Amino acid sequence: MLVDKRKAVANISTMQATAAAAQVALRPHFKTHQSVPIGEWFGPAPSTAIAVSSVAMATRFATAGWRDILLAIPLNPGALSHYQQLAQQLRLGLTIEHEDALDTVAAVQAPVDIYVELDAGYGRTGLAITQVARIDALLHRAQALSNVRQLGLLLHAGNSYSSRGDDAIAAVHQHSLSALAQLLDQLSFPRQQLRISVGDTPTCSRMREFPGADEIRPGNYVFYDLMQQQIGACNWSQVALALACPVIARYPERGEVVVHGGAVHFSKDFVLINGQPVYGQVMQTSPDGWGEPLPQAQLIGLSQEHGKIRMPAEQIAQLRLGEVLVIVPAHSCLVMDASQGQCQIIN
Amino acid sequence: MLVDKRKAVANISTMQATAAAAQVALRPHFKTHQSVPIGEWFGPAPSTAIAVSSVAMATRFATAGWRDILLAIPLNPGALSHYQQLAQQLRLGLTIEHEDALDTVAAVQAPVDIYVELDAGYGRTGLAITQVARIDALLHRAQALSNVRQLGLLLHAGNSYSSRGDDAIAAVHQHSLSALAQLLDQLSFPRQQLRISVGDTPTCSRMREFPGADEIRPGNYVFYDLMQQQIGACNWSQVALALACPVIARYPERGEVVVHGGAVHFSKDFVLINGQPVYGQVMQTSPDGWGEPLPQAQLIGLSQEHGKIRMPAEQIAQLRLGEVLVIVPAHSCLVMDASQGQCQIIN
Repeated sequence: MLVDKRKAVANISTMQATAAAAQVALRPHFKTHQSVPIGEWFGPAPSTAIAVSSVAMATRFATAGWRDILLAIPLNPGALSHYQQLAQQLRLGLTIEHEDALDTVAAVQAPVDIYVELDAGYGRTGLAITQVARIDALLHRAQALSNVRQLGLLLHAGNSYSSRGDDAIAAVHQHSLSALAQLLDQLSFPRQQLRISVGDTPTCSRMREFPGADEIRPGNYVFYDLMQQQIGACNWSQVALALACPVIARYPERGEVVVHGGAVHFSKDFVLINGQPVYGQVMQTSPDGWGEPLPQAQLIGLSQEHGKIRMPAEQIAQLRLGEVLVIVPAHSCLVMDASQGQCQIIN
Repeated sequence: MLVDKRKAVANISTMQATAAAAQVALRPHFKTHQSVPIGEWFGPAPSTAIAVSSVAMATRFATAGWRDILLAIPLNPGALSHYQQLAQQLRLGLTIEHEDALDTVAAVQAPVDIYVELDAGYGRTGLAITQVARIDALLHRAQALSNVRQLGLLLHAGNSYSSRGDDAIAAVHQHSLSALAQLLDQLSFPRQQLRISVGDTPTCSRMREFPGADEIRPGNYVFYDLMQQQIGACNWSQVALALACPVIARYPERGEVVVHGGAVHFSKDFVLINGQPVYGQVMQTSPDGWGEPLPQAQLIGLSQEHGKIRMPAEQIAQLRLGEVLVIVPAHSCLVMDASQGQCQIIN
């Protein structure tokens, strides 16, 4: 796995500038990279607020010096002892989306921030944003707990991932933020006592304003990937992560090449391109890493250790056995997780 | 991740009995588990021949005492130094599927076994089994290398994975072995000088004879999974691996539950059931692990850390927040890889 530091650092700066211009805080989601050294590219650990999505990640970053960590996934009562340990060392945010979770919150013997997750159309987790009375009551009940320091609302418009292009991204963004505005109008709970955290990489990359939000919480923007390029969240020159895979078999007669690089490296996440699953895009190699995409050279099949690439026969004819192909994956977050942090930093 | 040792050991014994009855050797593919402690369930390391699919796996098992290791993936010239190191400590088999690979074979300064990979219809790697003259010439050229100890042919009928039921599995099996018989008839290279290794979990689990083969090489049978159950390679009571995931959100109104258990735990491999991707099957929990499948309770969506389960509302109504669901994944091999060997052995 190759990480192009120059591109990643530029992506980090661009997002910081977006947040500053929109007058919102930026809480990068560190689930994308899960790496302490890469985390330091975002700024000094003690002063950088972050989001994560597991206790294991929270513990890793806590140990390395981060002091404001939001667990942006609904809490699990079975992890109470971990929450307590974290809350005693740093500013911990927990996410809830049901009244039952308050028992766990109350049991944490340390101050915590509590974010109520809302669903504005993605359909994964969160209270439906139209359940005004229930959300209102939940906020009041949470506020009554003596260890709750800050209350917030948390949204993730993950449905932006099915958008293609700025207009479609803007439509998801507007739908989600106008639902939020409508909710805030109707809540009896005071807006100024709520911290509102929104964000996903497509909207945070392409939109310029986040009305109603106090902070944005994108993650994938540090590396981007084939999926983000297809969505229109980035262009190819911003993609900062790729896999270098040796060619182990060539079949010009069927227009295919096989690399040693499989599901355990790429994950089986894919993008549908012309109705076909594509797991990665082969890039032109360059002296400092990789350049533009190699036309018509895509990763179209994966088994555990094998990756099958469709490529024109005339290109295959020039490939030597063992030659290394640089491939941008469909989904950087899963590749980074699979790599267990073993990557080569370039540039 | 839970591994039911009693079931896994029974699966290992069953396959040993199948191989013995069919008078073929058994070379289990250790890519499925990648684990030294689990590897020891197959018999004493020094006397158990195994297959793996990466240098990293080969090195791990070599260090732990295995002494006959076949790298069942086409060789990569860039890994020459690793091959040499392995070949100096143990009986190493390398796989080739192109004349160019002979340069690397010749450069290994130790004896090696060489398997020529053939493709009988799967369409991943291997020389097309109908290219008789090319295969013959490659075998003669390989035999002429002074460090080649044993020559072999290697087949993997991975197309059995798209079969459903014994008749379909038998059709793939017969197609593949009759193509092999036809090739052997036409080769000038003497059959008795070739070791022939075939195998994939569906055919090795369901077929009783392997005419033409000297050894079988299945892997997944130690654990099985939802995919193998759907293929008909196993029944539910043989599945020996599952993930235990806490419920973090419940939506009876839309018939869905979300667990903390996502793409980084399950992988994104799926089985199409009624045209829908299914990533796992929820099982009934039992005092000693899990029992039969919970009807209509399936994992239908995955993001990095979240798993979405479709389940009847009346079952959801009985679920507590934090309650643990036991889920059989679509593909055990990828789950095991993702776990980095962190599993709880039960029974």
